[in-house]
Parts: sequence; structure tokens; C-alpha cells
Amino acid sequence: MRPSNRASNEMRAVSFERHVNKHAEGSCLVKFGDTHVLCTASLEERVPNWMRNSGKGWVTAEYGMLPRSTGERMRREAASGKQGGRTMEIQRLIGRSLRAVVDLKALGEMQITIDCDVIQADGGTRTASITGAWVALYDCLGFMETRQMVLRNKVLKDHVAAISCGIYQGTPVLDLDYAEDSNAETDANFVMTGKGGIVEIQGTAEGDPFSEEQFSTLMSLAKGGIHDLIELQKKVIAA
Amino acid sequence: MRPSNRASNEMRAVSFERHVNKHAEGSCLVKFGDTHVLCTASLEERVPNWMRNSGKGWVTAEYGMLPRSTGERMRREAASGKQGGRTMEIQRLIGRSLRAVVDLKALGEMQITIDCDVIQADGGTRTASITGAWVALYDCLGFMETRQMVLRNKVLKDHVAAISCGIYQGTPVLDLDYAEDSNAETDANFVMTGKGGIVEIQGTAEGDPFSEEQFSTLMSLAKGGIHDLIELQKKVIAA
Amino acid sequence: MRPSNRASNEMRAVSFERHVNKHAEGSCLVKFGDTHVLCTASLEERVPNWMRNSGKGWVTAEYGMLPRSTGERMRREAASGKQGGRTMEIQRLIGRSLRAVVDLKALGEMQITIDCDVIQADGGTRTASITGAWVALYDCLGFMETRQMVLRNKVLKDHVAAISCGIYQGTPVLDLDYAEDSNAETDANFVMTGKGGIVEIQGTAEGDPFSEEQFSTLMSLAKGGIHDLIELQKKVIAA
Amino acid sequence: MRPSNRASNEMRAVSFERHVNKHAEGSCLVKFGDTHVLCTASLEERVPNWMRNSGKGWVTAEYGMLPRSTGERMRREAASGKQGGRTMEIQRLIGRSLRAVVDLKALGEMQITIDCDVIQADGGTRTASITGAWVALYDCLGFMETRQMVLRNKVLKDHVAAISCGIYQGTPVLDLDYAEDSNAETDANFVMTGKGGIVEIQGTAEGDPFSEEQFSTLMSLAKGGIHDLIELQKKVIAA
Amino acid sequence: MRPSNRASNEMRAVSFERHVNKHAEGSCLVKFGDTHVLCTASLEERVPNWMRNSGKGWVTAEYGMLPRSTGERMRREAASGKQGGRTMEIQRLIGRSLRAVVDLKALGEMQITIDCDVIQADGGTRTASITGAWVALYDCLGFMETRQMVLRNKVLKDHVAAISCGIYQGTPVLDLDYAEDSNAETDANFVMTGKGGIVEIQGTAEGDPFSEEQFSTLMSLAKGGIHDLIELQKKVIAA
Amino acid sequence: MRPSNRASNEMRAVSFERHVNKHAEGSCLVKFGDTHVLCTASLEERVPNWMRNSGKGWVTAEYGMLPRSTGERMRREAASGKQGGRTMEIQRLIGRSLRAVVDLKALGEMQITIDCDVIQADGGTRTASITGAWVALYDCLGFMETRQMVLRNKVLKDHVAAISCGIYQGTPVLDLDYAEDSNAETDANFVMTGKGGIVEIQGTAEGDPFSEEQFSTLMSLAKGGIHDLIELQKKVIAA
Repeated sequence: MRPSNRASNEMRAVSFERHVNKHAEGSCLVKFGDTHVLCTASLEERVPNWMRNSGKGWVTAEYGMLPRSTGERMRREAASGKQGGRTMEIQRLIGRSLRAVVDLKALGEMQITIDCDVIQADGGTRTASITGAWVALYDCLGFMETRQMVLRNKVLKDHVAAISCGIYQGTPVLDLDYAEDSNAETDANFVMTGKGGIVEIQGTAEGDPFSEEQFSTLMSLAKGGIHDLIELQKKVIAA
Repeated sequence: MRPSNRASNEMRAVSFERHVNKHAEGSCLVKFGDTHVLCTASLEERVPNWMRNSGKGWVTAEYGMLPRSTGERMRREAASGKQGGRTMEIQRLIGRSLRAVVDLKALGEMQITIDCDVIQADGGTRTASITGAWVALYDCLGFMETRQMVLRNKVLKDHVAAISCGIYQGTPVLDLDYAEDSNAETDANFVMTGKGGIVEIQGTAEGDPFSEEQFSTLMSLAKGGIHDLIELQKKVIAA
Repeated sequence: MRPSNRASNEMRAVSFERHVNKHAEGSCLVKFGDTHVLCTASLEERVPNWMRNSGKGWVTAEYGMLPRSTGERMRREAASGKQGGRTMEIQRLIGRSLRAVVDLKALGEMQITIDCDVIQADGGTRTASITGAWVALYDCLGFMETRQMVLRNKVLKDHVAAISCGIYQGTPVLDLDYAEDSNAETDANFVMTGKGGIVEIQGTAEGDPFSEEQFSTLMSLAKGGIHDLIELQKKVIAA
Repeated sequence: MRPSNRASNEMRAVSFERHVNKHAEGSCLVKFGDTHVLCTASLEERVPNWMRNSGKGWVTAEYGMLPRSTGERMRREAASGKQGGRTMEIQRLIGRSLRAVVDLKALGEMQITIDCDVIQADGGTRTASITGAWVALYDCLGFMETRQMVLRNKVLKDHVAAISCGIYQGTPVLDLDYAEDSNAETDANFVMTGKGGIVEIQGTAEGDPFSEEQFSTLMSLAKGGIHDLIELQKKVIAA
Repeated sequence: MRPSNRASNEMRAVSFERHVNKHAEGSCLVKFGDTHVLCTASLEERVPNWMRNSGKGWVTAEYGMLPRSTGERMRREAASGKQGGRTMEIQRLIGRSLRAVVDLKALGEMQITIDCDVIQADGGTRTASITGAWVALYDCLGFMETRQMVLRNKVLKDHVAAISCGIYQGTPVLDLDYAEDSNAETDANFVMTGKGGIVEIQGTAEGDPFSEEQFSTLMSLAKGGIHDLIELQKKVIAA
Repeated sequence: MRPSNRASNEMRAVSFERHVNKHAEGSCLVKFGDTHVLCTASLEERVPNWMRNSGKGWVTAEYGMLPRSTGERMRREAASGKQGGRTMEIQRLIGRSLRAVVDLKALGEMQITIDCDVIQADGGTRTASITGAWVALYDCLGFMETRQMVLRNKVLKDHVAAISCGIYQGTPVLDLDYAEDSNAETDANFVMTGKGGIVEIQGTAEGDPFSEEQFSTLMSLAKGGIHDLIELQKKVIAA
């Protein structure tokens, strides 16, 4: 029995709210249950120095948690003077995941920065971030297309979404919330595209090592979850 | 004529949404027009080292802006490795303003940290922060009263709220939005209590110096605005 | 009765010593009683990046306290790796105050940095800094005029000076020293020009809120004090 | 054809040199071909603050690269003032991998820090680090057993080793060197125990997404490689 | 011919002004010509953590330059977020030099911090700092003796002073000013005690290497200079 | 009697191993007994900004210690966020020492960075670093000569080597190891060239001041030691 009474292959209620920020070229408030992440896409007409004159653009991400997004207040990273290892790990993952479905050449020498700020956390903030970031990126590219800067379909090759799975009290479950995540024996994150390709897999044994069979089960759960997430993305961008 | 077509003594639509964060002991999403600030109050049962064994508690504040809360994306302070001067100035102001209406002795050796995070900015983020922070603090003290930790009425001596005024194209106006703020000749922030006492005054000539008469007019506007803000606070906590 | 036996509207002995630094284009050691601040003006023939090609110059300030300028030794900010919030607040204030009387266009694309370093502190370091900085700036512009770089009268539109006032044991007093400042109920800083225009007002209730009437009294005290300070500035530059 | 002419399932020459540091309680210079990592285990009889009085110990890791371990000199992290995201990601991975085979309770309130410093890099530094770190940890626990501080067999529950795999020019290959790593379409790291349990899986599409089948092939390669690495570990500790 | 027309063994005019800071337990403004350093001694009744319960005290120093103490304005170290290598080198040298004449046991578990802040620089700031710091330390110990905390004669075993020498246009000269220092072929600093013992020697070839004979000449010059400095110290503390 | 039973003028076994790094343009693992330092020379075809268009090149050094190079594990400087004062002092010394024998003009606008990383420390790391760095630099210039970038003999004017001496239990001894260094009354480092010129002298009284005679003895010891080191350098580059 999961703390939330969900079935083992049941995701939390997922929603996307677009256009939540009047300044950003694209924005999306994504909710995976009580995990709420505000994703904004910011367009700049310049690329990092190391990419200059490459003819290619760049998509990158930053991630942050509001100090009281969590059960206990965390120290503000701006106050402690640096981003922690977990923050950097996550923002690198979000950036890689998005770039896997972007044609940087078709983007041209421009940079899109996706900020994923966790307003409230209840497990799965990185997977919600990736999934919502795609929507913000989609809208940013729409903004650009309207201004004849790019063709969105050329730049954005596919959907991308992410979900966590884990083994909780011996049972493989989909989309861990905090109560599960903090007690799971194994924790895995999957990032996949609309065509079913795998972009990123991360599996970690929190307690005892896991077996290949267990991992296979987690991947099956993830495939189902990501399929549903991408259907939701399609619905929300069609709205 | 103001860019927003408001009358010179007309505030933007102001709203408070309480209980917006499932973790915080008190929380409030305050909106002054398109300026949206999320205020959370976090209770810790310990005080800063320099206050230990003083028998008194502490109320402090931190302030931050999401990178794309503004028209152009700002660099994330956590990434740049420090909080800027403006951030520190504002969070010190919020803390002082709240402490002006708190009896730290009645609070006892506990610390309440109010985080004011700007989700979207359109001028007046510091005044919205103070005004919303009071609501979050009120709810945090209610949480504590329920647990017999304090008597809220003993700790919280009065309301406190803040508003900006300025001279825009020669006319004194109330509650500047960004379009006005960035062009005002004079910019002033007022923090006052429910009983009409002044907690903080900050007036700055952005262009030419201003006169004592002009400043008087701004203060009159501010008194009216703060009176209304406090009425709104009363209504929202009565809800 | 004030700890220093001064009358309520009596400033401390104020003096300015010019040309105290052989390297700086302008310099002034200003004393407000036991508060001693060394102000140096440094000319650079370039402006910050964000001002390039604007045709305008920039005047900025930095502020620091020697570790033992205070009663208890403070940690050196260079050693702690950052400037504190109070430092940044003060140096921003000094810069704004000076720019209020400078025509940046007439200055041309050059930058003047005023360093205000507190050699010994006894309250009122920010007001002494502003008042002395003006003298250093005056001499720097004189240095430039001699070299046909600017016309001093075109660049420097007016005098500027600053003074603190406060309510100490119920009585409004002018120019607080440390003994008063650390016990004042209300503390206010005023920055005004030679023509009587107000550049900056900052009033803070340290204990109970103050009334508009009290604030008016403080402003009257300040006007008198600043008038005297500007007379002293005139005398010293005429010397 | 691989640049090194290895077969697709062929690892580079792997060697372990123990007792390479006269100060450390355990040490090992591990080589995966031209990738050379110096691993030292340092024992401290105290744990991090957050673990005090838990009755449990802690095993952690730090990772660094000498500035010229790489083809182009990298900036020294000590000089740039912070550890980059990649460094933090890797050291967190090494620490987690080791803790997966350690009984922290049996260790008691002591901390072992494994420093993995890359002397020369040619791809696969994180997998070499984990594999060599296990040997350093083994020797550190031997040092402790000799002094009756622990029973090594109780603390160290199993071997752990790691290997990278990837898809290089369409072919799944084992143990990528730099020439392959920088051009691989897919890059995956596997951490497994002596009993065949999986501790960590990380797979990343550098170019196009990969399929579940491809990932299965990589895992098979990894299982073979890790089996061989653990046989080598057994041989070297028996020596 | 030296730029200052001094004889090769002629120091600049040296002066010490005591009691220049109303807060510090000891203070001295030392001038070596146009090099002016403010030295303050601050007493704390606690020692660094690593010395606790050792029964011994500690004497340490910090060094800083005001931004415009130099010909071109330097960046403020507090603003750049760290002390540079030169600063650290010098403050370590000052501390070592003072400790060479202090009996830390006789001091007891107290710490004296000498801050040496360069108000104006014209070469030789480190030697002026050491020489003036000794006077500030002397007065701090006098302050303590008055309060029966220590016996000054037991704590302070001897005088200590420092001077620079160098080879300027082929000629060994004493007490280099900036014009010489920046062009010297060899630059050396000597720290010696009242009894003629050597505490520290630092000699550096700025251009071609120097010979043992040249170094001997520099040391002779230094001995003469330090003898004179110590006579001056004796005179000033007798005043 | 020295802890190592060496005669007072006897160095530890010294060895140089060249070409120890496949990436660096020059490299050398230098051992002074149990002190092992890896020196790599990295060539960049650009100079620091302040040297641009000077027609001259630059040789600089960086120094680091692996965390467990020492008896007790030291905190990693990259983790603590800055290089300590000792590190900066040493790397500045290494750079100055090398530049004393380099003709920067003959090098042309190129920069060579020598990284000296202490793999294992047992006293004398700075002198071993300088001595080994010369070999790495020699090989880097050889690499450049092969590519017709410079004439090695024009750039490298002489050998340079360094040794420590000290007074240990009253006796002047050569090449202190850690056991001696941590207990020496006086500690001195000498850097000299092949022609016998002195590049740098640093002598420090750790306990009582030392006399000119004692210092002379140390210098004699150093001259002998450096002569031998340079013979060894000659042998190793001839190999």
C-alpha cells in the first residue's frame, strides 16, 4: 500500500498551466501532485562565448528550490554563496534532456534558458521540471516562430518527458512522492522522447543493490508513465 | 495620465491568498497588480547565536527574485555566488518593518524567517513583500497559538503595511508600477502600522531633488494607501 | 541631556582637511567629532560596460570601515570574503547622493570613484562620508578642469551634504553620536543640496513607530544642520 | 573498429598498485589504460555533525583532476573558487557506490574519506575511481582491523566496481577511452557489486535517443567487465 | 643618484604617532616618508580554536591597503571577495615577526590582532607595518599591564623592526621608495630585533640573480637602518 | 643526530622522472626522499591580458597539495573555495624563480604554466617543486624547439634549483624533512642558478632569532646542495 493509496503504476494528478509569466517568452507551471515547479523560457540573442560563430544555438537550464518549498526550510543558495551539488546535477540533467530533442543548428545563434524553480516540493522535482520545461520551450519557440526567427518544427524534433520510479517496500512503483522517495530502496529517473527513445536513465540503490529484473520492471513502469505525460503535453499545447 | 490609467491616488488591485504552501507555518501570495510575491513564514525553535539566552526571539526576512520575474532575465544570485546590494537592502527593510510590530520577548526564544520570493515583478516588490509578509507572520503565529507556544495578540502588536509613492511626470502618484517607477523623478517607500505610526520612510530623488512640500504630498498619498492595505489585511485574516 | 552635553540642535565639531592623499585626484579627511572618514576621488578614463557609448560619465562610491574603527574590532570584510548588507546599502546611498548634483553628460565618458574609508567611527559615518565625498569630488573636478577635461561648474550643479537626526530619550536631536545612535528610538538620515532640495530621506523606527509630527521636527533639525555643513564646505573650498 | 583496436567487449589493461602513499590508512593507484587515479582512504575518528550520536559511521568521497591531467590544461578548481557541477556529481556517485557495500553501523562513529585524484585522464575517470577506491577502502579497514577498531568483513559487505559502456559509431563497446567517449552517441556508467547486484546505472544519449534493446546490450557488456574487474580486485588484495 | 636624492644608506624621514585611535588598546600611525600605515592593536580575551586550553596566547596581524593608497586605484579586496596572495604573504610576515619577540605563554590565553592598514603607499609598506605594529603592540600590552592582565616586560622580550634594501641601478641602497622599488634589480626585506638577532630575511632577484657579496652589503645596510628604527621606537615609547 | 641519520650536509635521495604525463608539453616527477611532486608544463599560445602586445611571454606556476599528501588529511582547497596564503606564497615563489632564468622576450607571446602538485609530502615541497619545475620547463621548451617555435637556449638562460636549510637542535642541516622542519629553530629556503647567482633567499626564525653567522652557515650548506641538484638536473636532461 502506497502512502497516497495510489496503485503501483498510478501517477499523481499532473497538470500544466501555460502563460503564467507575463515577461517570459514561454512559461509553464507544472504540477505533479503537490510538487509544483514554475518553468520559464528566456530567449537571448547571443550564445555562450565558447559557441560563438558556430552557427549553432544553445538550450540550457537552471534549477532552484525556494527555501520553504520543502518540509524543513533549506538555506537559500544565494545566501550560502553557491549552488550545491544536487542543484548542479539536476540543472545539468534538465539541459541535456531538452537538448536531446532540439536541433541546435536550426535554432541558430540564440540561447534559450529554462529556469525551473520549485515552488513546492513533494518528490520528483527533477522529473516535473523536465516535463514542464518542454512546454515552456515549446511556447518560447512559438514566440520565435511568430517573429519569423525559427520554424518551431525544425528546432523541436520531439517531445521529452521524465518520470521517477522506485522500489518501495519491495514493490516497484511509479512517480514517487516524498514519503516514498525518502524511504525507497531503489530510486530511478527516466527521460524519454515521444517516439519512445531513451534520453537518460539514472538508477540508484539507496539500500541494497537491485537486480536487472527489478530494473526492467521500473523501466516498464516508466514507459507507461512517460507515454501518459506526453499525451498530456500534447493536450495542453493543443488547447 | 498614468500608463495604467489609474487616478493619482489609486492603488493597483491588491489581493492576498493565504495557505498557499503546504509546508510553511504561514504563507501568503500577495499581488499588487502584476507584482506577485510569495511569502512564507518558517518557524525554528532556536535563535541566532548572538541572541542565545536572551529570552527573546527573532523575526527576520529573506528576499529573492526568480530570474525571469523581470522583463529581462536576471542572473540567478545563487549562480553568481552572492546576494546583491539591492537584495540585502530590501531584506533588511522587510525584517525591520516586521520587528516594529512584534514583541520579541513575548515570542520567546524562537525564530521566524519570512521568505519573500518575487514570482513576477512589476514595481513595488518591497512594499508588496512587507504587506504580504505580515499576513504570513500572522498565520505562523496562529499556528503557534494553536500549539500553545505563544499568544498571538501578545506577540503581534499591530498591523504593518507598505506602499510606494513617487513623482511621475510632475505629479505625485500612489503605488508605482514598473513603467512609472523606472521613469519617476522621485521615489519613496513608506511603512506604517495600523495605528498610523511610521516605521520606515525612504525617499530618493532619481532626478532633481524634491521639496519638503512634495514629500508631504507623497506622505499623504501613502497614508491613504496604507490605510486601505491594512483594511484589506483585516478582511483577509477574518476570512 | 545628551551624553555629549550638546544642545539638541547642535552638531559636533566638523572639519574638512583637503589634499590628504598624494595619489588621488581629490581627497578629504572629514571629521564629525570622533567620526573620521577619509574620502578619495579616483578618476578613470573609462565607464562601466553598461554605459559605454552613452556619452555620459559615472560617479560611484565605495565604503569601508577599518576593522578597529569601532569599539569592538569588526571582522575585515576582505577576510570574510564579502561586503555586508550595511556596507552595500551605504555605498549605494553615497553614490546616489553625489550623482544627484552631477551632470553626467557634462562629465563625459569618465568615471569617478569616491572611496569613503572610516578611520574611526562614532556614529554618523554615512552622513560624514557624503559630506566629505562632495569635497573630494569637487577637487577631482578641479584637477580635471586644470587639464581641460571638463568645466567643473557644468558638471557639479550644487553642493550636497548629509546629517542624521534622531529621537533620543524622547527628544529630537541633531547629529547623533554612537552613544545616542545605539539608543535612539528613531533614527533618520537626510541628504540635501545647497539650494535646499531633498535628495534622500531615510527614517527608521528603532523602537516604537514615530509620528508625522516627530518626523517634521527631525526634518527641521536636519535642514539647519545641512545648511551649516554646506557653509563649511563653501569655506573649505574657498581656502 | 575502435581507435585502440580493442574488441568491442575488451577492457583496457587494468592495474592496481596498493600502498602508494605513506600517510594514508589505505591507498591505491588504479590504471584503466592511460587513465590513472590515485585513491587514498583517510580515517577520522569523528562523523559529520548531522550524524553525531547516531551510532553509525560515514564513508564519503572527493574527486579532483590535476589541471594537466587532460589534453588541454583545465583551470584549477581551487583557483576558480569552487568545484564544478561535474566534480560534485562524480564525487557524490563515488560516495554512494562505496556506501552501498558498507555497513555503516558496523563501522561505528568514524568517517572514512576517499580522495580520488586523477593524475592522468583518458576517459572513464569515474569508473576507475570507484573501482580503485574500493581497494583503498579495503586497506583502510584492514588498518582498522589490525588496531581492533572494526571487523573488516562486518563492515565491507561486498566488492564494488564500475565500468563505462557506450555506443560508438553504432556499435556497443566496453570501457570507452577519451577518443571514444568524446564521440559516443550514448554513454553509460554501471556500478555493480561482487554478487552481481546493481548499485547505480547512468545512461545518457549524447546524440540521438537510444532504445531499450541497445541499453540491454550495454548492460550485458558492463556485467562482463565488472565481473573481470572484481576478479582483479580479488587478486590484488590476495597479493 | 637616488630619485629622492638620499644617500645610499639614508632612510626616509620616519615618524610614529601613538594613540591615534580612541577605540584600540594600542595604536600607531607610522610614516616612512610618504608611506603611511595605521596600526591598531585589538585585544580579545579568547584565542583561536586550535589554541584553546594551551595556556598560551596568540598575536596575529592583518594587512590591507586602502583602494587609493596607490598611484592607480586598486580594486577593494572586500569587493573582489578575497584577499590576494600578496596581502596574505605580508600579513603572515607581520604576525611571524611580532611573535618572534613575544612570550606567548606569558601573554596567557588572549589574542592580540594587529591591523596594519596602508593609508598611503610609497614603497616599503610591509617594513613600515612591522615597525609600527611593534609600537601598537607595546601600547596594547601597557593597557593590559595597567589592568593587571600581564607584565609587559615578561610578554615583550625585545624590539622588532624591519627595513627594505635593494640594488638600484647597480648600487645597494637602504629603504626603497616606490620609484626605486619598481625598478630595483634586487629587493630584500630584513626583520631584526633590538639585540641584533635576525627574525626574517627575504631577498628576491627582480632581474638578474645577485651574488652573496651583494647580499652581504644589503644586510649591512639593513643592520644600520634597523638599529636607527629601534632607537626611534625607544624614543617614541619614552615620550 | 638527525632523525633520518643523515649527515648535516647530506641531502635526501633525489630523483627526476621525465615524461610522466602523456598530455603535458613537459613533465617531471621529482622526489626529494618521501616528498614527491608532479610538475607539468602546459603551453598556451596566449598571454595574460595585461601582457598583450608586449612582445613578451610569461611563465607562471600553480601549486597544490593532494588532500592526503600530508600526515593528517587537509581540506581540499577546491572544496573550501579558496587557495590559502601558504599556497599562494609558494606558487608565487616558484613562478618568480623560473622567470629568473627565462628570457621572456625570446619566448614570444606565449604562456607556460607549471603545475606543481604534491603527491606526497615530507618537508621541502617548495624546493622540490622549483627544482622539478625547471626540468618540466626544459622539456616544454624542447617540445617548442622541435616545432620551431623557439630556440631553447635563447629562452632558458640557466639552471635553477632550490633547497631548504635549517637549524635543528642547534645544528645547521641541509634539506629538512618533515620531522626536522616541524621542529627547526630556523628555516631557510634558497633558490640559486647554475652560475651560482642567488634568485631568492627566505630565512625565518621559528623560535629565537638567528645570527648573521648562522645564516652564513646555512647559505654555505645551500650552495653545496644546489650545486649537487643542478648536477643531477644536467644528468637527467642528458639521459
